[in-house]
Amino acid sequence: MNGRNISLNLNVRGLSPSATLAINARCNELMREGKRVFKLGLGQSPFPVPGIIVDALRNHAHEKDYLPVKGLPELREAVANFHRRKDQVNASPDGVLIGPGSKELMFLLQLVYYGEILLPTPCWVSYGPQAQIIGRNVKFIHTTWEERWRISHEGLRRYLEQENDTYRPRLLILNYPGNPDGDTYNMEELQRLAEIAREYEMILLSDEIYGQLSHSGGHFSIARFYPEGTIISSGLSKWCGAGGWRLGTFTFPKPLSWLLDAMAIVASETFTSVSAPIQHAAVHAFRGGSEIETYLCHARRILKTLGNACASILTSAGIRVHKPEGAFYLFADFSPHTSAFKSRGINDGRELSERLLLDTGVAVLPGVDFERPLEEMTARLAYVNFDGAQALAASKQIPLDQNLDDSFIQTHCADTLEAMKRIAVWTTS
Amino acid sequence: MNGRNISLNLNVRGLSPSATLAINARCNELMREGKRVFKLGLGQSPFPVPGIIVDALRNHAHEKDYLPVKGLPELREAVANFHRRKDQVNASPDGVLIGPGSKELMFLLQLVYYGEILLPTPCWVSYGPQAQIIGRNVKFIHTTWEERWRISHEGLRRYLEQENDTYRPRLLILNYPGNPDGDTYNMEELQRLAEIAREYEMILLSDEIYGQLSHSGGHFSIARFYPEGTIISSGLSKWCGAGGWRLGTFTFPKPLSWLLDAMAIVASETFTSVSAPIQHAAVHAFRGGSEIETYLCHARRILKTLGNACASILTSAGIRVHKPEGAFYLFADFSPHTSAFKSRGINDGRELSERLLLDTGVAVLPGVDFERPLEEMTARLAYVNFDGAQALAASKQIPLDQNLDDSFIQTHCADTLEAMKRIAVWTTS
Repeated sequence: MNGRNISLNLNVRGLSPSATLAINARCNELMREGKRVFKLGLGQSPFPVPGIIVDALRNHAHEKDYLPVKGLPELREAVANFHRRKDQVNASPDGVLIGPGSKELMFLLQLVYYGEILLPTPCWVSYGPQAQIIGRNVKFIHTTWEERWRISHEGLRRYLEQENDTYRPRLLILNYPGNPDGDTYNMEELQRLAEIAREYEMILLSDEIYGQLSHSGGHFSIARFYPEGTIISSGLSKWCGAGGWRLGTFTFPKPLSWLLDAMAIVASETFTSVSAPIQHAAVHAFRGGSEIETYLCHARRILKTLGNACASILTSAGIRVHKPEGAFYLFADFSPHTSAFKSRGINDGRELSERLLLDTGVAVLPGVDFERPLEEMTARLAYVNFDGAQALAASKQIPLDQNLDDSFIQTHCADTLEAMKRIAVWTTS
Repeated sequence: MNGRNISLNLNVRGLSPSATLAINARCNELMREGKRVFKLGLGQSPFPVPGIIVDALRNHAHEKDYLPVKGLPELREAVANFHRRKDQVNASPDGVLIGPGSKELMFLLQLVYYGEILLPTPCWVSYGPQAQIIGRNVKFIHTTWEERWRISHEGLRRYLEQENDTYRPRLLILNYPGNPDGDTYNMEELQRLAEIAREYEMILLSDEIYGQLSHSGGHFSIARFYPEGTIISSGLSKWCGAGGWRLGTFTFPKPLSWLLDAMAIVASETFTSVSAPIQHAAVHAFRGGSEIETYLCHARRILKTLGNACASILTSAGIRVHKPEGAFYLFADFSPHTSAFKSRGINDGRELSERLLLDTGVAVLPGVDFERPLEEMTARLAYVNFDGAQALAASKQIPLDQNLDDSFIQTHCADTLEAMKRIAVWTTS
């Protein structure tokens, strides 16, 4: 837009499209020009939707009624049971809200809640822009590589003490296993964070959309330790491979039902309810069962093996990454190469990702898109550019008590390994 | 909510759930108590989704990818062609935006646009609350029964002249065939309104979601007369019977692409994109074809015959309604009975609808929900409480060049007629 003769909300004017979606468009452009591109930009699950869930959608294709704003009762019950079973929390169907993606639910939460948003960084790309659109205050708390990009209880306490306003209304967003980093919290870390949250009467939004993709299969929710103040966010997009279906869930404890109710009222004036056939199908996803558990075990095994192989390649080139614990991301810290980069005319993280794409065809997102300082030489690598259906089928031929070996990864995730090698060579050249 | 110890956005605090959804919940409550209820409250199409569109959803159930924010390219093309074909407007795929319901798109439009919203009343229930949530100014222009609840060009000009601010940024929302009234504009009326819109450089949001349910089959869009300033709103919910699927469309002219782009940016931070299987299925709906055209002809014939029969019953009881021209609503004006009502302790439109529900089991929505004055004795009657699948099948046995007779309606829409008779008897008793 040229900016003349238009009348736009100043909170929106000049905003760019969501970074993950923009990188995807950029890649498609380069591919049309005939260039080989390795898409480590968009964080979409490589795996297909489990067959029984696709079948469920087929069986419910005729459902045409507007469903209740908060969601189909059977689905709300299945989601509550899912969290009871998986996370040992005392979730109730009355506390569940279904939305067209958890991103939309986060937007509604920010819209209805009047308080400050606390975001440990690196964090997911959309939290900050959502706050800007609505005109909310966000406070970023930067973490470090040494802290495994996690907010420590000491760090959180230090931050809160200097604010000198104990009962300021605050919403702390935690995301684990984390996007963009693939790191998670252990039980003790969660317990300590929960203690501080209780002390300061903060609300926690616990974004656990990657919970079922914890590589060890052992995900813990902070709601176990701070049930009265924690909202759990989940959905079909990641563990169920159904990003394009658009279904997210928030699960509230009873004391936060005022937030749930306010969000439902805004939902009734905006998206109304989530697509009925999709909700009916999602019931089967949240109910789980052996086919879905098997699917998850194979997905985790593939991601763990591949993630570790990728991390090794990068580490050997002096790029700092953690051994991944969940999801399908590595947050790579290229800072040991900063002075070499500067002599090559690369002065910040954005230039790093742009030059990497031009020189090697590997598309990544710079740290600044995850609210890190622009000058920081970091980037998110989504190791998802492989045929997940094929890899899943091959993994199913190998008993689950065995590890996958290098040759499996080399056969089924060749492009991903090639991308990592290109990054390594380019960095050290 | 009791209102203590909560921290909510003041624009949201105290808002009630959407009126149409609330009446539905109220009816279900009464039915659980064993009461016979006639649901004329919620305006949902009584007809099933056409078979070929349900089949299309089945065939695309496996689609899992995040689609582009603005929509699936094939769908954007089908929507543009739909408006070119049906409305003779020069729509382009680049100008189409797909959302999870046109309600969500209207919310985003109000969020990104900085200007005043002009709403002729009676108007749809959600425009006003959306403006309140966002904190926008709305100016209501009340129309009258004598004007067929339509804004006349004289009325619009009179309103604008007294404002004395020609180029104030303004968005005028027109909805035709109209909810809650079932009335529409003829071509000359649209031409005259278009002239004023051009003169004042207003933006028009032309909500034509009921366009294909114009009872005569002859719907005209104001975009033919003011193409450069008109956004056309449509979707699957009404003419396609797929309200629960949640898919709406906005079609912008080139000069308003700045609004489209700003909405798409906010969409990328909120709903991301509409459910992929639903979008793939919707392509078939907007492409049309003989099965869908036949479906529409039968739906229109049933609605026209039933709407006229309902209007006759009400008119004979001295209730003022227009012969319906589209959709499935009557906006009934009980004002000739005002003094009789007052002697029965009914003092405003809300009390009228509450007493009607209690005394007769007929659920309707009072005029105040459509931004009419509370004291006005008006109500919306949605004549949809019949088995649409059965009526459609029966209609298909009768050649389309014949009219449906009274016995058809008595056989297939008995509850709707019974509800109208109860209203008539109750009013005059």
